[in-house]
Amino acid sequence: MSIESMDYQSELANKIRAHLNDLTKPVGSLGRLEEFALQYCMIKQNEDAGLNRLKMYIFAGDHGVTEQNVCPYPKSVTCQMAANIASGGAAISVLCKNSDIDLSVVDMGVDADLTYTPRLINCKVARGTKDFSRGCAMTSDECRDALDHGRRLAKESGADLLGVGEMGIGNSSSASALYAMLLGIEPQRTVGVGTGSLGVMLERKKQVIASSVAMHRKEWNGDALEALQRVGGYEIAGIAGMILGAAENAIPVVVDGFIAGAGALVAMRHEPKVKQYLFFSHASAEQFHKAFLEIEGLRPILDLDMRLGEGSGAAIAMQIVKQAMNCYHQMATFSSAGVSKEV
Amino acid sequence: MSIESMDYQSELANKIRAHLNDLTKPVGSLGRLEEFALQYCMIKQNEDAGLNRLKMYIFAGDHGVTEQNVCPYPKSVTCQMAANIASGGAAISVLCKNSDIDLSVVDMGVDADLTYTPRLINCKVARGTKDFSRGCAMTSDECRDALDHGRRLAKESGADLLGVGEMGIGNSSSASALYAMLLGIEPQRTVGVGTGSLGVMLERKKQVIASSVAMHRKEWNGDALEALQRVGGYEIAGIAGMILGAAENAIPVVVDGFIAGAGALVAMRHEPKVKQYLFFSHASAEQFHKAFLEIEGLRPILDLDMRLGEGSGAAIAMQIVKQAMNCYHQMATFSSAGVSKEV
Repeated sequence: MSIESMDYQSELANKIRAHLNDLTKPVGSLGRLEEFALQYCMIKQNEDAGLNRLKMYIFAGDHGVTEQNVCPYPKSVTCQMAANIASGGAAISVLCKNSDIDLSVVDMGVDADLTYTPRLINCKVARGTKDFSRGCAMTSDECRDALDHGRRLAKESGADLLGVGEMGIGNSSSASALYAMLLGIEPQRTVGVGTGSLGVMLERKKQVIASSVAMHRKEWNGDALEALQRVGGYEIAGIAGMILGAAENAIPVVVDGFIAGAGALVAMRHEPKVKQYLFFSHASAEQFHKAFLEIEGLRPILDLDMRLGEGSGAAIAMQIVKQAMNCYHQMATFSSAGVSKEV
Repeated sequence: MSIESMDYQSELANKIRAHLNDLTKPVGSLGRLEEFALQYCMIKQNEDAGLNRLKMYIFAGDHGVTEQNVCPYPKSVTCQMAANIASGGAAISVLCKNSDIDLSVVDMGVDADLTYTPRLINCKVARGTKDFSRGCAMTSDECRDALDHGRRLAKESGADLLGVGEMGIGNSSSASALYAMLLGIEPQRTVGVGTGSLGVMLERKKQVIASSVAMHRKEWNGDALEALQRVGGYEIAGIAGMILGAAENAIPVVVDGFIAGAGALVAMRHEPKVKQYLFFSHASAEQFHKAFLEIEGLRPILDLDMRLGEGSGAAIAMQIVKQAMNCYHQMATFSSAGVSKEV
């Protein structure tokens, strides 16, 4: 399926705006909620688009680059947190449970044997990426497989609105390298503390990523998917694949923070039209995330200094998009409520 | 009851922080959600404070200053919208219905005969204020009665968390005059378009408020409640009263936008300690609201370009405070989930 461009000057867009203006409120006074409703209906190409099934996918994977001692948490935390998310104990579990968002964790490449359940899905491509400071993180086949898993999950989701998040010790290193490569920016700017790399560890993280990016840039062919294969992660590939698959199936996606944003960037560089299908949920406290959003002209829905990942910002933003659509569908019109318009 | 000052260096505050740090996430990674949980528990003076009953009060009143032709909507809209809110058709009705917030509309001074229901409460002090461009908006008795209604409603609410919003044609004029008086700022800065006063109407609005503020300043004794009596509205007084009553009863309050903020400012100037009990929900698109928040050192939860009033920003922010408390109470701890801490 192809990804359509949306025409905001079309008859459809004008119909959606006319409905928004007929609701009992001053024109435009719901601010960005009205923008969200317009974008949502435009993605669905339907002025009466419903929003009932909200689904969140948390993609999990391990990273070979953790061998360079760039993270304060051991690799085993990826597996432990994937299980914790699936069993209801993580922040994202709580946020989804209390907002009617159906949550799934996807093992894209965790370096451990997980016990799969309906909520914890097996899409394992490999037990973690290879260390990108020494070579490519994945083979091209592995990268394609990971993208395909994400794409397929989107298509089979049956969701009206998708959220994407991630879990993976070491993945802020991978995301920082991807931002540097895809935006042509020096890693010094794109590397931050992640889950808490401070002092000497942060300096090492910066050096490792700077030298890795320099090495890969020499051989990189400029393609977004090749950048993903070189320095990405399986969970980031899963996110990029889900975004591409969602756009192909006219499903809007709410993107979490810094790491998920790197997956979105891969998808947008591979197919620029997908940008119209995305809601960027929040400005992460992770260094460079705000700069990325500014560079791409993206205004996040929230700015709450969050830096947890695992879809936590996306879940809250999905509630807001849902409320925008609630207003769109459930508010009275001026004529139905007997309210006077402007004189 | 007296309003307590909160000690964020106390044993209680440290207990709350210790619990936040034991949840399965990197320390501080939920950002402002953790601040909200800390503030909420500190207000309740209980490290295990529950958050179950969310209540929103929309205070409605009419304004004599509309005789000066400063608003694009007729006065009758106050009554029509109060009924629309109560019957479920307004934005705030939809937002509350979909987030388990119990909604009440309070007739503080609507210039019409309303049909009261359990959801539409009669606290009418008078049929609208008098025109503050010609004298005081209320008598001191009327002002006290309006404050008392708000205070009593807070006390009797049984709510764990309150939201306050308003409906009243002309009330952006009243709020602008109050900001000018209480902050010692020229009305030229505090007056904006409100629900849509543009061009000649906006110029007239500015002139009317500037001359009114100049007139009242000559006789004003400097007291916040006297400023309210001079240029305020019954719905703004209801909000100020509810905030004072909530603080007296250790109930946190989520304040809506520009107009509700004027009520909060009256309460904060009357009793500075109430500030600690307030969450400021959003930065309104109405001119001067962001400047007010900056002057008072307040960081709003949301910035969605909303300018509807009627508690719409507060409702969304209440969902976020609720999610912060959901995380606080429902997340697993490191030890319970078998997740490794930092190495």
